[in-house]
Amino acid sequence: MKIICNPKSLANKIGITQKAINSKTTLDVLKGIFLSTQENQLKLTGYDLEIGIETFVQAEIVEEGEIVVNSRLFGDIIRKLPDSFVEIETDSENNVYINCVNSRFKIKGDSAKEYPRLPDVQEENLYTIPQDILKNMIKQTVFAISQDQSKHVLMGELLEIENNNISLVAIDGYRLAVKSCELNNIEKSIKVIIPGKALNDINSLLSSEDDVKLGFDDKNAIFIINETRVITRLLEGEFIDYQKLLPREYNTKIKLNTKSLQNSIERASLLSESEKNNLIKLSIRDNAMAITSNTEKGNVYEEVNLELEGDYLDVAFNSRYFIEGLKNIDSEEIFIEFTTNINPCIIKPVDGTKYTYLLLPVRMSSNI
Amino acid sequence: MKIICNPKSLANKIGITQKAINSKTTLDVLKGIFLSTQENQLKLTGYDLEIGIETFVQAEIVEEGEIVVNSRLFGDIIRKLPDSFVEIETDSENNVYINCVNSRFKIKGDSAKEYPRLPDVQEENLYTIPQDILKNMIKQTVFAISQDQSKHVLMGELLEIENNNISLVAIDGYRLAVKSCELNNIEKSIKVIIPGKALNDINSLLSSEDDVKLGFDDKNAIFIINETRVITRLLEGEFIDYQKLLPREYNTKIKLNTKSLQNSIERASLLSESEKNNLIKLSIRDNAMAITSNTEKGNVYEEVNLELEGDYLDVAFNSRYFIEGLKNIDSEEIFIEFTTNINPCIIKPVDGTKYTYLLLPVRMSSNI
Repeated sequence: MKIICNPKSLANKIGITQKAINSKTTLDVLKGIFLSTQENQLKLTGYDLEIGIETFVQAEIVEEGEIVVNSRLFGDIIRKLPDSFVEIETDSENNVYINCVNSRFKIKGDSAKEYPRLPDVQEENLYTIPQDILKNMIKQTVFAISQDQSKHVLMGELLEIENNNISLVAIDGYRLAVKSCELNNIEKSIKVIIPGKALNDINSLLSSEDDVKLGFDDKNAIFIINETRVITRLLEGEFIDYQKLLPREYNTKIKLNTKSLQNSIERASLLSESEKNNLIKLSIRDNAMAITSNTEKGNVYEEVNLELEGDYLDVAFNSRYFIEGLKNIDSEEIFIEFTTNINPCIIKPVDGTKYTYLLLPVRMSSNI
Repeated sequence: MKIICNPKSLANKIGITQKAINSKTTLDVLKGIFLSTQENQLKLTGYDLEIGIETFVQAEIVEEGEIVVNSRLFGDIIRKLPDSFVEIETDSENNVYINCVNSRFKIKGDSAKEYPRLPDVQEENLYTIPQDILKNMIKQTVFAISQDQSKHVLMGELLEIENNNISLVAIDGYRLAVKSCELNNIEKSIKVIIPGKALNDINSLLSSEDDVKLGFDDKNAIFIINETRVITRLLEGEFIDYQKLLPREYNTKIKLNTKSLQNSIERASLLSESEKNNLIKLSIRDNAMAITSNTEKGNVYEEVNLELEGDYLDVAFNSRYFIEGLKNIDSEEIFIEFTTNINPCIIKPVDGTKYTYLLLPVRMSSNI
């Protein structure tokens, strides 16, 4: 193989490919980037056997071929080269020669024959959604994915396409986040579970208002973002029927400013003893809610204005889960609907965007 | 004590004071900020028994007094308050009440009686130097301070004032950095050793072209930066007579572009096996120098243009020490002077600024 290309463009594409490379893998060949020539482009592939990323850089192909190079070392070298032209050449012993202006590197590559092939996912009848919309959908839900290895399917998000609607759903046992958007020209309904890691990788590649194309087969999903393809294995199993978890009624409904509430809860949680268990108590009355916390460090009282519909309520929450939900709501104001102080409440933006954040309260002992 | 002030200004001053607070200390009272009223200001003090920082914030003093508050908790609370007015009040049991708009905190403070007093350093006949100049002096030398606890005095920098000149000197056994600047109106020569930690703290406080004022007694130094006083214990002992280490002659002198050399050495060190021992070999000839490195990962050849005066030379260095020196030179071009390949070389800016970086080569075995 012998190719010539611009180091800056190549470094950019190496960065993309590296998202799919697990540098801690015990399989040496998977620490590599698979380089192969394809017409007037160099194709770069990274793969950890779960997620694969393929992308392309414009190149002059002097001699066709393929090679695997250590992703870390190759990336470090290319990133440090001057903004000129780099020539990459291999020999029959898988040595890789990298020449650029006054720099000449020789590093060891691996035979491309050992590199595993990515699954083939059909690329017909793809769904189409603008990048910025998908990015926002991921951002507003992905933080609620379970980190608990024993809850296998909950380490991914349900992606549902039906009735001109696309939804992403994440649940971790304490809260649930659902974000939906309209999607036109749907020919077929879909219900799959995308791993959280893949969603984070995809999120980091979404950067414009151009379209993303989505495709699925029984085992895999493909996301095509500009000249980059992300192929991920789907999680197998049955996702929780989340619709059943959403309360249909409420006894207490409040409307309040999102940012004021977030700031007050953040302050109220400063006295908590541990990062994981920040208990705050809300006392909802006419026109205002008191937020209190009482720990060995001291106590705090915060007051937030609101509009109340329904009953007074005293209820306690883990402040961290509350804040994570509020942070991801763009609407200036929110509604919060409660049934009782032991049932989940629902947080919704007032601006009408389709987002629901469900949150379980903490049972109060009498002395908090 | 009862005072009213602006939370943003207070938060800023808490941040300054916290630089002198070691949150891992076993003495609880030293985790605190000592607050005391002084005319129409609130004085904040942080102290770890080595370095003390005192600063002031404008405040309305409703009732005089003093208290010690946990620096971390107090800082977190004040930083999260809205940009309005905060009222801070204490009671006879050292409770601290923090009220701001709709937020009310009550936290436990400590009696100010337990807080150690900072040493008194005389503030007459102070030396004066612009902040940006002192900042640059620290930046160009502080990285060469020894990290080796057994080399006590080398964990600080020699500060020398004499002959209308101020110098900072750092040595760690492998390299030496000296930066000097002119200083007028000197009445008395000074030779003291300032701990590295204090220099880093001072560096982070220097931000303008205003003057810093410096004062010394037998045991302590004081740096007055705007309304902030940094008082540090001096290191005791004799500093190495660094002047004797600087070679007076050379057999090989080269002139080359600082940035090109830095880039080439950075690339050449990418193949090194470990962060700590990046061996590179320089081969100095007419008009050009080859930089090579040869490891299990592969090999690299870099070429840098230069102007040579004197003999050809082959010499090896630890690239990390070389790069750290080059990074801190602003001059577009540098001179490097060598005697032999086992004696230290000297790197100097061509632009005439008074900076010297001395670097020990690595002895070459024949097979590198």
